[in-house]
Amino acid sequence: MMNKTDIRAKDEATIVDIEGKKIGGHYLGVIAGPCSVESEEQILNIARSIKAAGANFLRGGAFKPRTSPYSFQGHGLEGLNLLKLAKQETGLPIVTELMSTEFLDVFAQDVDMIQIGARNMQNYDLLKAVGTTRTPVLLKRGLSATIDEWLMAAEYIMAGGNENVILCERGIRTFETKTRNTLDLQAIPVLRKLTHLPIVIDPSHAGGYAYMVEPMAKAAVIAGADGVMVEVHNDPENAWSDGEQSLNPNEFQSLMNKVGLLAEMEGKGICQK
Amino acid sequence: MMNKTDIRAKDEATIVDIEGKKIGGHYLGVIAGPCSVESEEQILNIARSIKAAGANFLRGGAFKPRTSPYSFQGHGLEGLNLLKLAKQETGLPIVTELMSTEFLDVFAQDVDMIQIGARNMQNYDLLKAVGTTRTPVLLKRGLSATIDEWLMAAEYIMAGGNENVILCERGIRTFETKTRNTLDLQAIPVLRKLTHLPIVIDPSHAGGYAYMVEPMAKAAVIAGADGVMVEVHNDPENAWSDGEQSLNPNEFQSLMNKVGLLAEMEGKGICQK
Amino acid sequence: MMNKTDIRAKDEATIVDIEGKKIGGHYLGVIAGPCSVESEEQILNIARSIKAAGANFLRGGAFKPRTSPYSFQGHGLEGLNLLKLAKQETGLPIVTELMSTEFLDVFAQDVDMIQIGARNMQNYDLLKAVGTTRTPVLLKRGLSATIDEWLMAAEYIMAGGNENVILCERGIRTFETKTRNTLDLQAIPVLRKLTHLPIVIDPSHAGGYAYMVEPMAKAAVIAGADGVMVEVHNDPENAWSDGEQSLNPNEFQSLMNKVGLLAEMEGKGICQK
Amino acid sequence: MMNKTDIRAKDEATIVDIEGKKIGGHYLGVIAGPCSVESEEQILNIARSIKAAGANFLRGGAFKPRTSPYSFQGHGLEGLNLLKLAKQETGLPIVTELMSTEFLDVFAQDVDMIQIGARNMQNYDLLKAVGTTRTPVLLKRGLSATIDEWLMAAEYIMAGGNENVILCERGIRTFETKTRNTLDLQAIPVLRKLTHLPIVIDPSHAGGYAYMVEPMAKAAVIAGADGVMVEVHNDPENAWSDGEQSLNPNEFQSLMNKVGLLAEMEGKGICQK
Repeated sequence: MMNKTDIRAKDEATIVDIEGKKIGGHYLGVIAGPCSVESEEQILNIARSIKAAGANFLRGGAFKPRTSPYSFQGHGLEGLNLLKLAKQETGLPIVTELMSTEFLDVFAQDVDMIQIGARNMQNYDLLKAVGTTRTPVLLKRGLSATIDEWLMAAEYIMAGGNENVILCERGIRTFETKTRNTLDLQAIPVLRKLTHLPIVIDPSHAGGYAYMVEPMAKAAVIAGADGVMVEVHNDPENAWSDGEQSLNPNEFQSLMNKVGLLAEMEGKGICQK
Repeated sequence: MMNKTDIRAKDEATIVDIEGKKIGGHYLGVIAGPCSVESEEQILNIARSIKAAGANFLRGGAFKPRTSPYSFQGHGLEGLNLLKLAKQETGLPIVTELMSTEFLDVFAQDVDMIQIGARNMQNYDLLKAVGTTRTPVLLKRGLSATIDEWLMAAEYIMAGGNENVILCERGIRTFETKTRNTLDLQAIPVLRKLTHLPIVIDPSHAGGYAYMVEPMAKAAVIAGADGVMVEVHNDPENAWSDGEQSLNPNEFQSLMNKVGLLAEMEGKGICQK
Repeated sequence: MMNKTDIRAKDEATIVDIEGKKIGGHYLGVIAGPCSVESEEQILNIARSIKAAGANFLRGGAFKPRTSPYSFQGHGLEGLNLLKLAKQETGLPIVTELMSTEFLDVFAQDVDMIQIGARNMQNYDLLKAVGTTRTPVLLKRGLSATIDEWLMAAEYIMAGGNENVILCERGIRTFETKTRNTLDLQAIPVLRKLTHLPIVIDPSHAGGYAYMVEPMAKAAVIAGADGVMVEVHNDPENAWSDGEQSLNPNEFQSLMNKVGLLAEMEGKGICQK
Repeated sequence: MMNKTDIRAKDEATIVDIEGKKIGGHYLGVIAGPCSVESEEQILNIARSIKAAGANFLRGGAFKPRTSPYSFQGHGLEGLNLLKLAKQETGLPIVTELMSTEFLDVFAQDVDMIQIGARNMQNYDLLKAVGTTRTPVLLKRGLSATIDEWLMAAEYIMAGGNENVILCERGIRTFETKTRNTLDLQAIPVLRKLTHLPIVIDPSHAGGYAYMVEPMAKAAVIAGADGVMVEVHNDPENAWSDGEQSLNPNEFQSLMNKVGLLAEMEGKGICQK
């Protein structure tokens, strides 16, 4: 059982600020991009279109956690270099997943927000490692983790001195088969009560299908989320992974128009600079 | 496994119309009231305030399904009479739960919308019974039911000729302990694809705490729900059941203001007459 | 939450005795038979072979709870008559599911053990109805029910004066897809601590495949179960329902040999007369 | 989705042989010891008594995965040294959990069977690391992992060339609150069909209470498990962790007598050499 005194409380909301792009408090962060970095052309193309649509962070997988060791594992460091190129061109800070302490130094230097994936939420070795850096960490909730366990995982990072933790709800495992996982939007008000950390919602991984992304992203923002993370691909039908749940640039633009309006209703703005 | 041909499809959304109050299509239904009907004074008091706030249906439990046989089981037929009194005074149609075929005739005559509770979602005997009436049925999703099983339960009612079925998501069982159940808002886009039946969201039973009701009700409406069902009590701290999750009249009024605005954004209105 | 004083405690184990066939205490009950009663020939054939193998109760579905209203719903009262025929010939008491209070009187008169199915575990109307009879009731655990909720459902029956309740674990819903449900054998020691009621394990419905039945039935008996319930069909490949999980008579005979030996090790015997 | 061709099949059961102690095929392995290594006196004391009772592997936690970063994290390398001392005196091979690739070399040299804990079942970095060694690996099932995902995790190890993988079921997360987790004994026949790898059952972590250990250990053996893993403590009431689920040496001796007999019935023996 978690001891309530184990969670560090703070009076004000934590605002994570990466080169002027912010998440938390009055700032809604919008993280978008493909599941996997596939090629230079692909990632540049997508980075440009999400920037044009109003996103302020670029996501893309370089190291991919896959259930089978025989599935595509990502381009690794080469993928990371492509993300850096895209950042150079667009100015969008990059968010990508770290799976191994082996690459901690590279990530601490090159990545703007280190993602810890759902499968690694209780990989304490990795949590402690990112806790020694000062790079913001996007901590995804484990597939069957309780909110208490999730907050304790965040504590593993913060105990190392890195308080730039952003919590990301990406769906939990339930019996429902029409969706990949079940998005737990109640986590927003619950977390708001328990922690000052920013809360990001990832409707793409939660639902698993593109048609659910817009209604759930809108719901997340009106329910008070500090950010959304959306998979966007220039050619979803031919994506190397997760194409079914990716929006194309037009769909993303349309989503951004609605999300921007709802953010305003909640007193939030998307900070581009 | 459900056969896709088992579900009856229709081209247009079903609109349930009860004495001019509507749910479905461009009409957002707002069902509010206490968990249990406690007294004449209580139910009249609450009915008046929810009507003033803009709700168009009154809910209240007369027969209560309780885990223990030794808990308060509701006022039964007497509770139903108090609901009728409240309807006389306010004009709000009444929604209340039927637990036994024994009272089918009374309910078919006196109740405007018969609720089938989560525990009875696969009580086929009861489903067939309400299928023989023409009274609208609010069918709550079972605590661990898949959407397929839920739609098949609706088919049990419709197979009897009663097509006035309204689906009500009220939270599913997960491992999370900070909430009573987990509200599955993804069910809204999924159901919209699969069925023409109206979809109502009950954030009060799902979360189990009053502070979650407003963000989740807003999220439900912006995600496309056809209605919300909210527990309101004139004195939540002294409610006989579920006080922790009930809004007081002021909180409900505040919620209605926001919900009305969001409904408009979705092209919907609340039909009072 | 269940109040501990809500559960009636007794010093000794309850032994249910039906015409000399017993379940509980030092008596292991073996309930066997087909999922559905299909024809006179089928049920007589199966009844004879399970009796020869050593079972002491005959099960068979006359009224079948089905997810879809368009699936085979059982032969109803005609099925019940076939079970009575089989009893006349073999002397085996009959166990079959009641789904509706409409048939309570017939069941109270003709059925030796009334089964309440998993979907109806919290159908309080039905529980109260069988509580008014003195016929033993086999109460299956709901698919996602906790042990507390299950015991409270038993209390609904006992509160009516019928203390002949037998608890039947039949698998709970989990994320595992290689099995129909997950058999919870830990329920045996837990229930033994909490209640004097006999505990029966149904490995056929839990696993969903015939090859799992023998190891799980053996495990149940050595873990202290008071009975097992096993689906047996003379021709599993052509069974109208649940053929995949049915043993044929030879497999059942082989199982009985092993189960008998393990029961003896636990100080139990199968009472045939 | 797992591709069936992803799992390597073999004609015969894999037998893991550590200095003559074996698990798999006709050999039942019995792994026993405390949750945490606390002191030299404690671990030597326990090692002697479990050896006397017939266990053939010693388990003990040196590095402990804890939900909170502020809970006792284990004695680390010092704990490992105490385990080595206990091995020197008793000859029992040692089993202990590896949480970080940082200690891979030490573990590969000093530990006889490396445990990968439930939280790290999909820590692919760690899986690949132990795949580069030739030390047997005890791979615990994740709390909500399906059998497919678990076998794929084993593939991550075997893909590196280390085929000495032993699968350990330790309970899965369900809604039941009377037990810590739900022991899935059906996994035994399912795994037997799908893989040649040995299957060990851990009833201590699954149930969470000492009184459930004996019935579940017996059930595991009669259902065909290749081994059991049992927490034993010389003074359970004062154990630093998991005391509630630990047997004392007398209880363990009594369990071993029963388990030995059941193993024989299943054609298995415990190899002490």
